[in-house]
Amino acid sequence: MFRMKGEDTYIHKVHYYETDRMGIVHHSNYIRWIEEARTEYTRLRGIDYAEMEAQGVLMPVINVNCSYKQSATFGDVVKIETSLRFFNGVRAVFSYAIYLKDKAHLIASAESKHCFIDKQTRRPVNIKKLFPENSKIMLRSLVKEVQ
Amino acid sequence: MFRMKGEDTYIHKVHYYETDRMGIVHHSNYIRWIEEARTEYTRLRGIDYAEMEAQGVLMPVINVNCSYKQSATFGDVVKIETSLRFFNGVRAVFSYAIYLKDKAHLIASAESKHCFIDKQTRRPVNIKKLFPENSKIMLRSLVKEVQ
Amino acid sequence: MFRMKGEDTYIHKVHYYETDRMGIVHHSNYIRWIEEARTEYTRLRGIDYAEMEAQGVLMPVINVNCSYKQSATFGDVVKIETSLRFFNGVRAVFSYAIYLKDKAHLIASAESKHCFIDKQTRRPVNIKKLFPENSKIMLRSLVKEVQ
Amino acid sequence: MFRMKGEDTYIHKVHYYETDRMGIVHHSNYIRWIEEARTEYTRLRGIDYAEMEAQGVLMPVINVNCSYKQSATFGDVVKIETSLRFFNGVRAVFSYAIYLKDKAHLIASAESKHCFIDKQTRRPVNIKKLFPENSKIMLRSLVKEVQ
Repeated sequence: MFRMKGEDTYIHKVHYYETDRMGIVHHSNYIRWIEEARTEYTRLRGIDYAEMEAQGVLMPVINVNCSYKQSATFGDVVKIETSLRFFNGVRAVFSYAIYLKDKAHLIASAESKHCFIDKQTRRPVNIKKLFPENSKIMLRSLVKEVQ
Repeated sequence: MFRMKGEDTYIHKVHYYETDRMGIVHHSNYIRWIEEARTEYTRLRGIDYAEMEAQGVLMPVINVNCSYKQSATFGDVVKIETSLRFFNGVRAVFSYAIYLKDKAHLIASAESKHCFIDKQTRRPVNIKKLFPENSKIMLRSLVKEVQ
Repeated sequence: MFRMKGEDTYIHKVHYYETDRMGIVHHSNYIRWIEEARTEYTRLRGIDYAEMEAQGVLMPVINVNCSYKQSATFGDVVKIETSLRFFNGVRAVFSYAIYLKDKAHLIASAESKHCFIDKQTRRPVNIKKLFPENSKIMLRSLVKEVQ
Repeated sequence: MFRMKGEDTYIHKVHYYETDRMGIVHHSNYIRWIEEARTEYTRLRGIDYAEMEAQGVLMPVINVNCSYKQSATFGDVVKIETSLRFFNGVRAVFSYAIYLKDKAHLIASAESKHCFIDKQTRRPVNIKKLFPENSKIMLRSLVKEVQ
């Protein structure tokens, strides 16, 4: 499958309830937004996370990191660009660039690390064996770092 | 069991993340606060809601209503007084008075209606049969309206 | 301005973080969704709420009511149809029908009541005088009940 | 002022609405909990953050990091131990250990970085000049790393 540049930009309109009395979006919401962006990123590539859960595999967050450079507020439209940085069947790392308007207005950058676990036993699993199709998609999506 | 007046006042310190850019607590949080108060109300009487869920019964909200009279903000301490208004084994209705400092400063009043359902089938159940002890506690807790 | 039927249907994809351990969307989120729908409803008609705030007028919620009939969960797409039921310059009442797929799958219905206040004094204001254009739009948008 | 070991442990009862359909607390809530813990940490030492805001200084988060080791769910009581790791009047870094029951059950560790800005201009400020008393408290609270 061929993906054009920019196709992975997830759009989120800032909601009033996401702001705090500082007048801007409360920082905890960025952690929720990157979940929205990640869900859309995998969905666009043919991975239905709800379906994976239904089949007994969860992908919990094991680390999250977010740097805030500028703020956003009600009325703003934020754009989130998601990249898959690492995937080996057992763990996955996504990175996110959050900006207003265009990439010249980066407001935050974030990263989330995940593992895959069995819904019942809560033990780590390797999804290369359990979901070979999804794993291939993930491997193909890996960002190739240029030298 | 004898309960002194005032024992059911649930205390909630307003968190920064609960405010919005109007400078006050976002109204949706009151719906969360009354859940906190309800949980504490039943827990104080010996009903462990987590335990009920573990045994297969859920108590979803079927209606919620909240009137906002004054506002609260970060730094405030709100007090919530919960009353059980109706209970027949199949449905329950709680009401809540939310105030600052003392009862002269009522900031909101709310009501929530609930049913009981089986966790698996999602069908209504009568907890008088399934949890006779809890039902007795609920019946004893019912507010007796004075004439 | 002519509006076709159905134009006011606001679409919301259910986020993972909106679910709770009952496996469904936590009921408090519906209160947030109707805010999203209301914002979009007025925006589509040419009323920019952020702009109204910038000019010193707030529209706080004074009552909210929601009845839950069915549930929604992660992966679902909910549709919210907003109607303006009452408006007199001082108060406004909106109603909302929340459904899955089509109107045959109504999952919740809600209502919100609002007043208009001055941002500084927090005193009620009549927006017929302050925002005559917005008021005309609101009056035109009022649902005409058929007999 | 003398502070006994353990005095800084902030207690948070897990709310139902903080869980997600994985059956555990949604990871974004830990970012909110550390805000609660930080507020309490400074308040216990005599720094009223609401008061600082009223005097025109905000302390936004510029970076947040959280590692999740175990989960918590409704009914659990989490304990958060806050430490001030760095403070120079312009920036502050807090770290947090989040555990269940006792320190043998660490479920997450986190860190937040902050700057101080003027509420109006949104420009960085040095609180050593603006709030000398608060700054002294912060400096005294700095964790002295043992060798």
